[in-house]
Amino acid sequence: MATIGFIGLGNMGGPMAINLLKAGHEVKAFDLSQTAVEHVVSEGGTAVVSAVEAATGADFVISMLPAGVHVQGLYLTGEAPLLDVVSDNALIIDSSTIDAATAQRVSAAAAERGLSFIDAPVSGGVGGAIAGTLAFMVGATDEQFAKAKPVLECMGKNIFHAGQSGAGQIAKACNNMMLSILMAGTSEALNMGMKNGLDPAVLSEIMKQSSGNNWALQVYNPVPGVMEGVPSSNNYQGGFQVDLMFKDLGLAMELSQQSNSPVPMGSAARSLFSLHKSKGNGGLDFSSILKLYQDS
Amino acid sequence: MATIGFIGLGNMGGPMAINLLKAGHEVKAFDLSQTAVEHVVSEGGTAVVSAVEAATGADFVISMLPAGVHVQGLYLTGEAPLLDVVSDNALIIDSSTIDAATAQRVSAAAAERGLSFIDAPVSGGVGGAIAGTLAFMVGATDEQFAKAKPVLECMGKNIFHAGQSGAGQIAKACNNMMLSILMAGTSEALNMGMKNGLDPAVLSEIMKQSSGNNWALQVYNPVPGVMEGVPSSNNYQGGFQVDLMFKDLGLAMELSQQSNSPVPMGSAARSLFSLHKSKGNGGLDFSSILKLYQDS
Amino acid sequence: MATIGFIGLGNMGGPMAINLLKAGHEVKAFDLSQTAVEHVVSEGGTAVVSAVEAATGADFVISMLPAGVHVQGLYLTGEAPLLDVVSDNALIIDSSTIDAATAQRVSAAAAERGLSFIDAPVSGGVGGAIAGTLAFMVGATDEQFAKAKPVLECMGKNIFHAGQSGAGQIAKACNNMMLSILMAGTSEALNMGMKNGLDPAVLSEIMKQSSGNNWALQVYNPVPGVMEGVPSSNNYQGGFQVDLMFKDLGLAMELSQQSNSPVPMGSAARSLFSLHKSKGNGGLDFSSILKLYQDS
Amino acid sequence: MATIGFIGLGNMGGPMAINLLKAGHEVKAFDLSQTAVEHVVSEGGTAVVSAVEAATGADFVISMLPAGVHVQGLYLTGEAPLLDVVSDNALIIDSSTIDAATAQRVSAAAAERGLSFIDAPVSGGVGGAIAGTLAFMVGATDEQFAKAKPVLECMGKNIFHAGQSGAGQIAKACNNMMLSILMAGTSEALNMGMKNGLDPAVLSEIMKQSSGNNWALQVYNPVPGVMEGVPSSNNYQGGFQVDLMFKDLGLAMELSQQSNSPVPMGSAARSLFSLHKSKGNGGLDFSSILKLYQDS
Repeated sequence: MATIGFIGLGNMGGPMAINLLKAGHEVKAFDLSQTAVEHVVSEGGTAVVSAVEAATGADFVISMLPAGVHVQGLYLTGEAPLLDVVSDNALIIDSSTIDAATAQRVSAAAAERGLSFIDAPVSGGVGGAIAGTLAFMVGATDEQFAKAKPVLECMGKNIFHAGQSGAGQIAKACNNMMLSILMAGTSEALNMGMKNGLDPAVLSEIMKQSSGNNWALQVYNPVPGVMEGVPSSNNYQGGFQVDLMFKDLGLAMELSQQSNSPVPMGSAARSLFSLHKSKGNGGLDFSSILKLYQDS
Repeated sequence: MATIGFIGLGNMGGPMAINLLKAGHEVKAFDLSQTAVEHVVSEGGTAVVSAVEAATGADFVISMLPAGVHVQGLYLTGEAPLLDVVSDNALIIDSSTIDAATAQRVSAAAAERGLSFIDAPVSGGVGGAIAGTLAFMVGATDEQFAKAKPVLECMGKNIFHAGQSGAGQIAKACNNMMLSILMAGTSEALNMGMKNGLDPAVLSEIMKQSSGNNWALQVYNPVPGVMEGVPSSNNYQGGFQVDLMFKDLGLAMELSQQSNSPVPMGSAARSLFSLHKSKGNGGLDFSSILKLYQDS
Repeated sequence: MATIGFIGLGNMGGPMAINLLKAGHEVKAFDLSQTAVEHVVSEGGTAVVSAVEAATGADFVISMLPAGVHVQGLYLTGEAPLLDVVSDNALIIDSSTIDAATAQRVSAAAAERGLSFIDAPVSGGVGGAIAGTLAFMVGATDEQFAKAKPVLECMGKNIFHAGQSGAGQIAKACNNMMLSILMAGTSEALNMGMKNGLDPAVLSEIMKQSSGNNWALQVYNPVPGVMEGVPSSNNYQGGFQVDLMFKDLGLAMELSQQSNSPVPMGSAARSLFSLHKSKGNGGLDFSSILKLYQDS
Repeated sequence: MATIGFIGLGNMGGPMAINLLKAGHEVKAFDLSQTAVEHVVSEGGTAVVSAVEAATGADFVISMLPAGVHVQGLYLTGEAPLLDVVSDNALIIDSSTIDAATAQRVSAAAAERGLSFIDAPVSGGVGGAIAGTLAFMVGATDEQFAKAKPVLECMGKNIFHAGQSGAGQIAKACNNMMLSILMAGTSEALNMGMKNGLDPAVLSEIMKQSSGNNWALQVYNPVPGVMEGVPSSNNYQGGFQVDLMFKDLGLAMELSQQSNSPVPMGSAARSLFSLHKSKGNGGLDFSSILKLYQDS
């Protein structure tokens, strides 16, 4: 069993760390929030007082932070860069969702010092983090991926090797942009059907069995009442917030800008989520985009 | 077994009529093209010299025409309107893809005369028409639907009762708008991944198993070489043409205009197919929209 | 002075007819609303009881109707088509804003009978109709245009010869699509500036003197308080309603569909006005699109 | 007359420095390209061997660099940050077009040390830089603005005080986003008119005198042959390149993301320029966006 320094124990990081503990690993837990640390400690983790202490001597360092600026600061440009303290044979796994350019920059800086930094953002939400069924999209060499996989499998179900450094972030940006397109598109197709008198459950079923079939129709229908146990049937509470979708779409726009990849559909979806957010809906589940379409 | 007048024996109508013959029905076949009629006759159909002759005395009248103007002319406002000749107990099934308003207008005119006209557009393409695996989206009363179903099952696999008169056309417009969104969105997500170094087969697999999953990734991948037996792996030949997708998106825009249903994503997709068509790609399969995104 | 049959005396048609009277013409006034007729009669017009009576014996027939279906019915396919009664040497001027295809169809039908029908839609709104400062965009032969011009000049200031039959409607569709793009674009640029702390009057002035300069900044600023005497400074009352802009954008979409002219920007603008309308703002001036962008 | 350190003597910076010389100022010229320096020296400038030498002892430091990362490096985080060497009473004027956040960060860092850094991006292109007719959009305090104005007037005609620190960059991002919307919108309106048989010169004139009026119609018509002396009539050579418009739209997207300002029209325009650039047109003038719309 390995010693793992875990930095960032929020809604996602906390349950992920606990799943590592359940699998028998030793976890040195750090977060700016003492409450977050204590929660992990109550499940068997070891509290440490700094990211440096978490990283020092660990076999794996895992980070789960809000944005690229935090990841860069933590490892590279902050007051106590972790790249100065991690062991030569340690593997750093960053599971934050950040821009690919930062992931690649930190990975390159690590490589220069003979260290290993890989990007492994997740999808699956808080539910998946708790259940240990996250999907990991990994940007790493074959060797790094082989080393990371058993650890990631303690926290997730599907572990994808997307490609070299940064590829995990790129894959996630592509996937989540696609998701925003699916959800907005499905909402507008269902809304048009409803405005013309169709039953949304019937239309959903028709499209699901036809060429309009997609993830939203299968497991995340945006119309309240069509499907049980989804945010739309719970006043759009829980799930994946509009604010987070908007953040991810910002990362997709950045990626498209740097690589000049045209993204007209993703841009249109981002505009819709932006309009929706500006009306005070940032805290709702992203399937609430249906409300933007509806008459009021 | 029934006597069926079939009007419109093109790429879709021809094989549909033949499947009715195979099921044991009698088919009175009419088309402006003598060749089209002869093809059906060679499979056991009876040639007739006019739509009126096809419809007179038939148990079912089935039409498969290019646009609403033809359907309205055939039944209602042309020189020899079929509503003047069909039997009281006949069922008229229009399988053309047309605007819902025309379908509803003709249906109402039929009802005024004690006749039954239902809309039953199909999806599944020429392949589905030949194999008898089409999906039918039907706008009809329960009674009309019950009467139509056994006949439709000779030509298709999934027979959906979408709702009352016009609902079949509405469902098809919603589904095909969704399809255009899926295909354009999938193409742009895969293109962005590829421009950033990802293998399209790997990225397709990741998205298919994640929240980006949709029909295009499942059975119709737009990137040449990722999937066998699809148009993208055959120079975008065959399949569902850009011209037809553009036509269907026009119907969706019309429906959105009449009902004031906002369709920003569908409008964005229509713009892309329009740009693609304007560069001379109208005859290619619609998954060729990927080419619009790619560097040249 | 001429005898003019005027059909359609609403918010626009009424003042236009009155300006013809002021110029000394004889006006035979017809509208379904008796009140509308009486208003024109009180300014010197002659009440007639039918469109046929208005058209019979007139030197000019002018119509101002809501949509293409009304124009086609009035002249061609209704119960008493005016093409059956207008004099050989009369000129028919349709100032309705309708689809170009209908204008061309009616014009061709007129020509077949040796009659003259031209399209001459207007811009300038109710204010321009009252003041006699409308712009007319005319689709006509040179000869027809020469004959129409003196009459149009009684009602308007700029009389443009856009081209042959239908060209007036085409020019208007292009112009109003452009207008929707300008207004939405200006609103979003100003809103982004304001959200980042800029004074909208200062930013408006900068853009007006730079390459962002456009009609909205010059005479129709959408931000309340920047400009006096515009709808934005009067709670978006008066002016040009969202409902009418949405109708005109529908005509632009139709034109783009028939001619396969890609209109991504116009489509995006239509989507925004559609979202805005669906929230109950159809009766506000179209510069209220700013509200769609703003935080609430 | 003042001593001015000028850093960045490219297509824009070179002529700007020369105009300062013509006005009688002393210019210490620095650029990584020796040729660029020599050109300014030939007009009376003084060559210096480093940015530090240019800035040391100068009354004004003016910089004209490609992107925010260069500006931040030059003044703040590079190997020899200029904030370490500029005089207390000097005014730093950054005329680069960069993100507002970087401008504000550098300005704040300067203020902390008792120094003055203002943002003053320009519009007007190479032609305006040579002619001394640039527009400056300035983010500065009143005092800073008053001090900068006489110097800026040596290089430009319209000197706008947009607001506090960063406001110049914000105003420019808003204006150029508006410009992209105008140009794409004008191109698509004219293209739709042409595809329907209208003469682009006639339609341009109609829209210019109507509510579609905008900068593109006034001075920069995108259709070859309509207007003389513009890039469209010179094979889209010269002018403002697609690559630069795409860069500016990236800055607008960033600003919209940070402030959650919805920019659906700007996003749609960015998508079009991105598609156009991906087909190898990055080096053409941005009015060549018309070609994206046209049949081929």
